[in-house]
Amino acid sequence: MTEPATGRARPIVFLTDFGHEDEFTGVCRIVINRIAPEAGVIDLTHGIEPGDIRRGALALSAAVTYSPPSVWLAVVDPGVGTDRRALVLRAGPHYFVGPDNGLLWPAAQSAGGIGQAWDISQSPARLEGGHRTFDGRDVFSPVAARLANGEDPRDLGVEIGRDEPLRLELPAARLGDGLIEATVLASDRYGNLALDAGSELIERSFLEPGGKVRVEAGDPPGPIPGSPVSFVDAFGGVEQGEALLYADSSGSLSLAVNRGDAAAAFGLGPDDQLRLTPA
Amino acid sequence: MTEPATGRARPIVFLTDFGHEDEFTGVCRIVINRIAPEAGVIDLTHGIEPGDIRRGALALSAAVTYSPPSVWLAVVDPGVGTDRRALVLRAGPHYFVGPDNGLLWPAAQSAGGIGQAWDISQSPARLEGGHRTFDGRDVFSPVAARLANGEDPRDLGVEIGRDEPLRLELPAARLGDGLIEATVLASDRYGNLALDAGSELIERSFLEPGGKVRVEAGDPPGPIPGSPVSFVDAFGGVEQGEALLYADSSGSLSLAVNRGDAAAAFGLGPDDQLRLTPA
Amino acid sequence: MTEPATGRARPIVFLTDFGHEDEFTGVCRIVINRIAPEAGVIDLTHGIEPGDIRRGALALSAAVTYSPPSVWLAVVDPGVGTDRRALVLRAGPHYFVGPDNGLLWPAAQSAGGIGQAWDISQSPARLEGGHRTFDGRDVFSPVAARLANGEDPRDLGVEIGRDEPLRLELPAARLGDGLIEATVLASDRYGNLALDAGSELIERSFLEPGGKVRVEAGDPPGPIPGSPVSFVDAFGGVEQGEALLYADSSGSLSLAVNRGDAAAAFGLGPDDQLRLTPA
Repeated sequence: MTEPATGRARPIVFLTDFGHEDEFTGVCRIVINRIAPEAGVIDLTHGIEPGDIRRGALALSAAVTYSPPSVWLAVVDPGVGTDRRALVLRAGPHYFVGPDNGLLWPAAQSAGGIGQAWDISQSPARLEGGHRTFDGRDVFSPVAARLANGEDPRDLGVEIGRDEPLRLELPAARLGDGLIEATVLASDRYGNLALDAGSELIERSFLEPGGKVRVEAGDPPGPIPGSPVSFVDAFGGVEQGEALLYADSSGSLSLAVNRGDAAAAFGLGPDDQLRLTPA
Repeated sequence: MTEPATGRARPIVFLTDFGHEDEFTGVCRIVINRIAPEAGVIDLTHGIEPGDIRRGALALSAAVTYSPPSVWLAVVDPGVGTDRRALVLRAGPHYFVGPDNGLLWPAAQSAGGIGQAWDISQSPARLEGGHRTFDGRDVFSPVAARLANGEDPRDLGVEIGRDEPLRLELPAARLGDGLIEATVLASDRYGNLALDAGSELIERSFLEPGGKVRVEAGDPPGPIPGSPVSFVDAFGGVEQGEALLYADSSGSLSLAVNRGDAAAAFGLGPDDQLRLTPA
Repeated sequence: MTEPATGRARPIVFLTDFGHEDEFTGVCRIVINRIAPEAGVIDLTHGIEPGDIRRGALALSAAVTYSPPSVWLAVVDPGVGTDRRALVLRAGPHYFVGPDNGLLWPAAQSAGGIGQAWDISQSPARLEGGHRTFDGRDVFSPVAARLANGEDPRDLGVEIGRDEPLRLELPAARLGDGLIEATVLASDRYGNLALDAGSELIERSFLEPGGKVRVEAGDPPGPIPGSPVSFVDAFGGVEQGEALLYADSSGSLSLAVNRGDAAAAFGLGPDDQLRLTPA
């Protein structure tokens, strides 16, 4: 069991769906600074679509393996103001602070699984005021700041069973005989489409460097423009404007267009289904 | 009178309407870092609509009560390059740096009122170069950085009367007999609509927890879809997709849709009028 | 020759085209924090349009003269995953880290010209994993972090000739007899249009404070609405809603509308041609 280190303030990695128009992330930073002036705040992203728990969970997971021991403050919380719990999870050398809606679960798994969990809904660290609609400011930020300062989570909440936090089931591609049935998990700024097939599935599949793959989408399924496409290790493996399949920077199978926008070119986005077969 | 603390560098809370496409906020951060390398910069928001002084003022006000003693650097400045003054205000334990267009006024009031004011238009801290179109970089950032370093505002500008800075009159809801006539102040990322009715007006009004309220908008006024709506203390007080009235995280009366977007659903935004009566 | 200072961690100025929706900038910050926890990261901007190398280069150039000795981490890299080189440049008191596609070149010129250059494509600082599509995380961030820590670039790459890095040719206005033929370089958030005419050309031209200028655009060229416009030193030099020409905060000739949006009003943007003559 790896214990979070004590000593000087640990960084707080900060992810929300608050966007950049309002002052919401800023007020949280102010609350953190008042409690933990020595703690650095590392913005992971605040551009998650409002309420998109899965996209938030994927972003946390993609980052956690690169991180020093940190406090993760994550707020994608469509259930704020209901009786959903507020949580601290300990996993590996990290603490995760956020709502009990699955958001924290995949990253905690990537960090080695939940070691301990606390319910901080009635935390003594909670800011006074009786507000119930901005737990990012009133509950999650003060708890994260105190953890960054080295306070013990037992003083910030009530321990619960480590199996109690809500799990988030992500789709997982199905590997058949000469067939991959996959789902688009996310589309990024460049229009690259991440599928729900990880490195292990890729290795066990028919995919081979330089091999050609028939890619079908739609209902009924039909080949996308440019199919069959090459499975290569980087964009440079195909001509400009050509589609490619590759293992992306998180190891996930992805569909892209070299110097183009695959999401726009193929009209594909999260939850769309793909059918891949050898060409 | 609370004096700003001296000693180590105070944080600079930074708000602008510069957006995120250009390098404007970054150049200001660079100027600050060169003058005050120990001062932390806390981004409040840079997503204020260009020139929307009122929205900027509301964001500053919403944040100030949560803040440790800070230097506030705020630039929403459609009058840059005219003869509008550049200001430092002292209010409570804070300094506010920005244009004399009302932007700083409501937050200074929230911090206890203006204690002293200085005109920094011709500040000796001003960067050389003769430019007149980027005071954020050339005047406000260097002055804020020097204040964060603990320099005396008397060395950075000329004291003026504390009643001289331009005031910003915000709309204020009218409370009648069984009637609230309110104006939408702002719409946030989630489509929640903040009205110009604060906690004091709410307490004096007919609004009661769980009570039903008839909400009218438009010209001529008619009930919004879903009216009457419940006045509750959080989103969880109504079903998903239902409208609600509640006191938001700043204490202002707000209109929202649970897990929905009230601004879009009702076609309402800043400056629209609402008429609330008991149902 | 000015050598970058050694000693405590230098700031890292960070520019990308990663945008704000994904976790890409955040993962880079995490990688930097693990290697160089004492190094401050100054975000210049991450809102460069995907692949717009010229806009990124202009943003770096606009900032460099205001900066203390820094490590510049710049990633606008449509060629990631090809055999384009990864570079460190030393120029003045700065290091520049990024792809060999011209992005770094204009800023290095502004900082006094390239003093030395290193190819870091096969840097020992590269993160393991075999990924080839996220050099921002895997190559540029770890190298920048080590430079911020004071490591010697000779330990991070292979020195190459200082004339080898790819140059970026920017358009340059042509000054004729009573004529300026200029190109729009960039449009900012306010719709102000920066042209490719710098302070030197302005001084040598027919432009005089308060003078009237006929501005033509389009094919065939015709006067823009409101032409002739005044050449003034700030927005306040014309009435609200009026167009103006002025030297912007970088010294470039720019076309704007006082409290308006010139890009929208005139339908102009990057690469559009303008023809200016005395009116």
